[in-house]
Amino acid sequence: MTTTTAAVLGAGSWGTAFAKVLADAGADVTIWARREQVAAAIREYGTNPDYLPAVRLPERVTATSDAGKAIAGADLVVLAVPSQTLRGNLANWAAFLEPDATLVSLMKGIELGTTKRMSEVVVETAGVPADRVAVVSGPNLAAEIAAEQPAATVVACIDMARATVVQRAVTTSYFRPYTNEDVLGCELGGAVKNVIALAYGIATAMRLGDNTKATLITRGLAETARLGVALGADPLTFAGLAGLGDLVATCSSPLSRNRTFGEHLGRGETLEEAQAATRQTAEGVKSCLAIRDLARTHNVDMPITEQVEKVCHEGVDPRKALIALMSRETKAE
Amino acid sequence: MTTTTAAVLGAGSWGTAFAKVLADAGADVTIWARREQVAAAIREYGTNPDYLPAVRLPERVTATSDAGKAIAGADLVVLAVPSQTLRGNLANWAAFLEPDATLVSLMKGIELGTTKRMSEVVVETAGVPADRVAVVSGPNLAAEIAAEQPAATVVACIDMARATVVQRAVTTSYFRPYTNEDVLGCELGGAVKNVIALAYGIATAMRLGDNTKATLITRGLAETARLGVALGADPLTFAGLAGLGDLVATCSSPLSRNRTFGEHLGRGETLEEAQAATRQTAEGVKSCLAIRDLARTHNVDMPITEQVEKVCHEGVDPRKALIALMSRETKAE
Repeated sequence: MTTTTAAVLGAGSWGTAFAKVLADAGADVTIWARREQVAAAIREYGTNPDYLPAVRLPERVTATSDAGKAIAGADLVVLAVPSQTLRGNLANWAAFLEPDATLVSLMKGIELGTTKRMSEVVVETAGVPADRVAVVSGPNLAAEIAAEQPAATVVACIDMARATVVQRAVTTSYFRPYTNEDVLGCELGGAVKNVIALAYGIATAMRLGDNTKATLITRGLAETARLGVALGADPLTFAGLAGLGDLVATCSSPLSRNRTFGEHLGRGETLEEAQAATRQTAEGVKSCLAIRDLARTHNVDMPITEQVEKVCHEGVDPRKALIALMSRETKAE
Repeated sequence: MTTTTAAVLGAGSWGTAFAKVLADAGADVTIWARREQVAAAIREYGTNPDYLPAVRLPERVTATSDAGKAIAGADLVVLAVPSQTLRGNLANWAAFLEPDATLVSLMKGIELGTTKRMSEVVVETAGVPADRVAVVSGPNLAAEIAAEQPAATVVACIDMARATVVQRAVTTSYFRPYTNEDVLGCELGGAVKNVIALAYGIATAMRLGDNTKATLITRGLAETARLGVALGADPLTFAGLAGLGDLVATCSSPLSRNRTFGEHLGRGETLEEAQAATRQTAEGVKSCLAIRDLARTHNVDMPITEQVEKVCHEGVDPRKALIALMSRETKAE
């Protein structure tokens, strides 16, 4: 077997941890970082100063701020940039792709305006057929994977042979990928869970109990599955690692950005104050708009997403929004 | 509408909290406590000294240690005794049942030896038709409900008219019941979740991360649903409040007995030491035997239940058992 050559485009925490997984599985990996300073630190010290600074990256990982250099010669091109920047970035990168490279999306968002999933944006912007795009999604908090805590994940691709190639390229003693054909379901699970995690964070800040929070997870997964089924996903995907698994990990962990952001909102901070306090915008804050639009277009009832959108973008008091959610009428389940 | 008369048989924490729910919803409630001392305290001070001692019970709640007195005249007979004692207790109580009384099970176990669900034991022992038996199950940590934290639940009965009667009798501002026809699925969800919560407790004591614990919940629900489908349950029940909801609440809460018991085992204590430390046996410790037997009879693969049974009853080291679980081979999900 020849050695896999991989490019990881994006030096955030998940991109960085995934580069380590690829290298530990035997690949030669080049991380692209937007800022040369970060690329230089990875090259010189084997650590990413901005994300997971305590994690020592394997020797097989290098870095560059020149995306073309990272992409040229790569069998696997891993996309790990903020969702709303994908289209612009990929337009510049498409020319460097090898003719049979597999594009692997780690991104969990829905594009604003177009309401497209990340794999759809990849196909459109890179001009590649959908069977060359894979999605990795599951209960994968980056810090835990970087610390080699055992984790499982899903590699989804409509071409199962290609899914298997990616699966092999990222299997390590601590990271166990399962293959799945349902790209659509995996992507929706990942995107909507960020929105539900915002609601969970609000509930946490309001000191609601575990009964209430478990109900929020249950109802959240149900509305995700309703949207998924309306769009053609396999309902079983939502009961699996990329649905339930990812949702539970994100809601349970104090490390989760979307939950943490929700906690700030639940303490009564404005969106701007929460952004200032966390020094970033959580994916769910943007995606909730696109997911609400998708749901309305397809006549799907998504009450949690509706309320999160109102809290984030219409100035509704999060405590009122959550009470509105919990007081929907008694009926058959 | 005439006032509902309810008997709650069993003065544990869930029986006590449920008596409060019934009374808050307008019923006259008599709790049966095995020990007269407990019944007297409820009558005289309006509190249960053994469970939820800080909770003031409503005026409409009284108590007796004479089960016949509680049952006579009751429209709703709520069964809240330890699962393995139901058959013996109910044999003594059946003669007192009103001809059209509804029997409501709060119990989450499977009978050892017979591998029967609680509603099956009720039908057999009380000699009532199955359409007179309802099951209440959901994310319902008793202490939170007693504190009037908002919670939702499922009332399952094969007779939907009767389910609706029970639903109305237990609807309060903080407790919201949904009806469901799938008695089998609701009971299995409740019983197996205790076993998964033991595994979750072991994982917690081993300081495994949120990715691993979310995977355990996902796989745990999957094996519950596999057993359920093999026995004829509706797979959707497991995605609802009585499946996912109950499982997540139980695993998340440090108040959960089964999770706490698992934590003791995960710290290396023997079954006897864990029993001594928690002053009780968690339901899952007994049920795991019956559930494993059910699974084997129906050729259903339940790896988590198998390992929990080995830890509880065959002296297997819980850490080895969990590692065995996490290292199953890579495959399609």
